[in-house]
Amino acid sequence: MVNRDDIRAAQQRIQHDIRHTPLLRVPGSTFGLNVAELWLKLEHHQVGGSFKARGMFNRMRALPLPASGVVIASGGNAGIAVAQAARALAVPCEVFVPELSSAAKRAALLALGAQVVVGGAAYADALAAAQQRQAQTGALWMHAYDQMEVVAGAGTLALEMEADAGLPDRVLVSVGGGGLIAGVAAWFESRCRVEALEPVGCPTLHAARAAGQPVDVVVAGLAADALGARRLGDIAWAVSQRHVAAAHLLPEAAISAAQQALWRECRLAVEPAAALPLAALLCGAVVSAAHERVALVLCGGNFDPTTLTSTV
Amino acid sequence: MVNRDDIRAAQQRIQHDIRHTPLLRVPGSTFGLNVAELWLKLEHHQVGGSFKARGMFNRMRALPLPASGVVIASGGNAGIAVAQAARALAVPCEVFVPELSSAAKRAALLALGAQVVVGGAAYADALAAAQQRQAQTGALWMHAYDQMEVVAGAGTLALEMEADAGLPDRVLVSVGGGGLIAGVAAWFESRCRVEALEPVGCPTLHAARAAGQPVDVVVAGLAADALGARRLGDIAWAVSQRHVAAAHLLPEAAISAAQQALWRECRLAVEPAAALPLAALLCGAVVSAAHERVALVLCGGNFDPTTLTSTV
Repeated sequence: MVNRDDIRAAQQRIQHDIRHTPLLRVPGSTFGLNVAELWLKLEHHQVGGSFKARGMFNRMRALPLPASGVVIASGGNAGIAVAQAARALAVPCEVFVPELSSAAKRAALLALGAQVVVGGAAYADALAAAQQRQAQTGALWMHAYDQMEVVAGAGTLALEMEADAGLPDRVLVSVGGGGLIAGVAAWFESRCRVEALEPVGCPTLHAARAAGQPVDVVVAGLAADALGARRLGDIAWAVSQRHVAAAHLLPEAAISAAQQALWRECRLAVEPAAALPLAALLCGAVVSAAHERVALVLCGGNFDPTTLTSTV
Repeated sequence: MVNRDDIRAAQQRIQHDIRHTPLLRVPGSTFGLNVAELWLKLEHHQVGGSFKARGMFNRMRALPLPASGVVIASGGNAGIAVAQAARALAVPCEVFVPELSSAAKRAALLALGAQVVVGGAAYADALAAAQQRQAQTGALWMHAYDQMEVVAGAGTLALEMEADAGLPDRVLVSVGGGGLIAGVAAWFESRCRVEALEPVGCPTLHAARAAGQPVDVVVAGLAADALGARRLGDIAWAVSQRHVAAAHLLPEAAISAAQQALWRECRLAVEPAAALPLAALLCGAVVSAAHERVALVLCGGNFDPTTLTSTV
């Protein structure tokens, strides 16, 4: 399992590659909440527009990089982060995407210099094609969330937040495959309350808790492009069983409303997946005491900003 | 003239009203620039979506507030900031707007509980109507930029930045009426190089420098809703003569390109007026040495986000 030393080592390794993202502290009243302080971790300003760069740079810095570079199957933020890291480290990068990935995301990958390969109809097909390719080329295999270095890299977000502001009372984190919450929970080790948030359409952690182990789920909905992993990672499962205090399912409408509220009240333009922490408070799924300092991880900003509603 | 003690006093006065906005530090290479470090002051996350709240809260905290509240003529960020401050301090607020102000801005003012009065065709008419109203009601008169408390409040942005990160080598600030740059330059007192940026369509400081005193100019263009003051403030004139090292006019296209680059590379959604500092570097109007740490003040985010171009 990933521990605090792994995360400290990751932080040393990637500190010149990634951005130390800022913390914006506002009173809960900003959003009509009876909570002393919200710590908004502005991780959507990270290299590549999401927290994913932390893990990808960490894996690529920690392991030998073959001349054939890196390969990943991803239609979303993980692919963008790997492409960004590969460009920075000047190695080749192949990203296998499913047919249903957006043209805009493919264009973004191409702009970063990645080779983009359409690897079949669904993500599972792209994954199989990518694995086959990796066996041919010997490129370093990158997983979107379930590798030790990827989780330890994600944990640097929590280390950074604690270095900036100390321990919050509670940390709210979105879950897809669970790489982010695994890193965050491994860093805090139950020193504060870490809670997991999933859209009703992408319930990987809920399904794992119900089944007693990670299982495949069907994914859909607004945040599915970022949180639509089919199955919780094994590392996330192990860490979350020890250090994640609760898990909540959130309705789509609450996520949209929170995304718009972040824009309206703070001019924060974030993707739906990054709005779950505020959504959990606004819809009452998470109830904080009035004295609490609650950290909300705004995990990414890779979305179409024309979906926001103008307020001026 | 406003001095550092005034700014320190302002900071004490408004610290619970406004947000300590974060600083995002990135290498110049983020935007293809040969500059060691850019300090992006994320002031668009401020209460009311711009730096204006600092000055408005400071004036309303420093002076007695009559029962008739406050009155201002403004079609833009200053009006929104006054409305926000009046709501927080629970006093009435009248905002006189010109007919050409946007329906969205008026709706935003109404949503903040302000009385909105359409005061004539142009800003000058709204100003005359507002002054007449002030004489009737005895409400506290708020100027968008040319009052001591307003300038001192704006200066707290610079105090905050220095407290967070020390002195930069250079600070780049957009100029409309000059309230922001007056506060920033009064804080730094030439301890670092403060430079002024204006769109070619809103050259109040240039015109003042050419004439040897503030004079009326015709304003137009992309950033005119935020930087379209007709004349530089007297306070800004006095401070800028001592502590603003240079002033640059920037073409519209450079401003648009910088606004899109801030979104593309950092997921920062800011209004055109806030993009001038980066525009100055990208178009070569300001040339920094490779070792420099250059602070860019992102002064506001009150714009229609559907004008951004999606990159994923």
